[in-house]
Amino acid sequence: MGNEQLEELRDQLDKVNLQLMEVINERASLVKEIGRVKSAQGLNRFDPVRERKMLDLIAENNKGPFETSTLQHLFKQIFKASLEIQEDDHRKALLV
Amino acid sequence: MGNEQLEELRDQLDKVNLQLMEVINERASLVKEIGRVKSAQGLNRFDPVRERKMLDLIAENNKGPFETSTLQHLFKQIFKASLEIQEDDHRKALLV
Repeated sequence: MGNEQLEELRDQLDKVNLQLMEVINERASLVKEIGRVKSAQGLNRFDPVRERKMLDLIAENNKGPFETSTLQHLFKQIFKASLEIQEDDHRKALLV
Repeated sequence: MGNEQLEELRDQLDKVNLQLMEVINERASLVKEIGRVKSAQGLNRFDPVRERKMLDLIAENNKGPFETSTLQHLFKQIFKASLEIQEDDHRKALLV
């Protein structure tokens, strides 16, 4: 009985993991597009004010169970990975 | 024109950020529940074999744009934060 319950919860977790991956990748596509628009306008890709605003939005809307500080830490990691993907794009553009 | 396009993309990004936060928190609720079930069965909350399987599932289903290694790095951070939230629950349970 207990094992069935655990298996059921793990199946749910696998589905949530895949959903999470999809949203993270959707976010990455959007960030790449923003990088292209900013690059065309000669704007810097790294924008600490905009990052701060995104972190504030998380703080304002968090209903848990994660603490806001934990979510903000995770989002900072996602921002960092997103900047790296924009920089890869930029390097490739320079090589064309 | 360019600024309108940038504003539109940023609005989309804000929505995706909130969606991402919701899925991360939904995942945290599920992980807390798994922690309670495992704790009731006397099982260890940290399970490296199960973590490996979750990372493999990401690798098998990733369609980009993020590299699988980047996604796996982000998921490891999420696993770490999830273990911490389970441990908080466990400490509180011991205090009851």
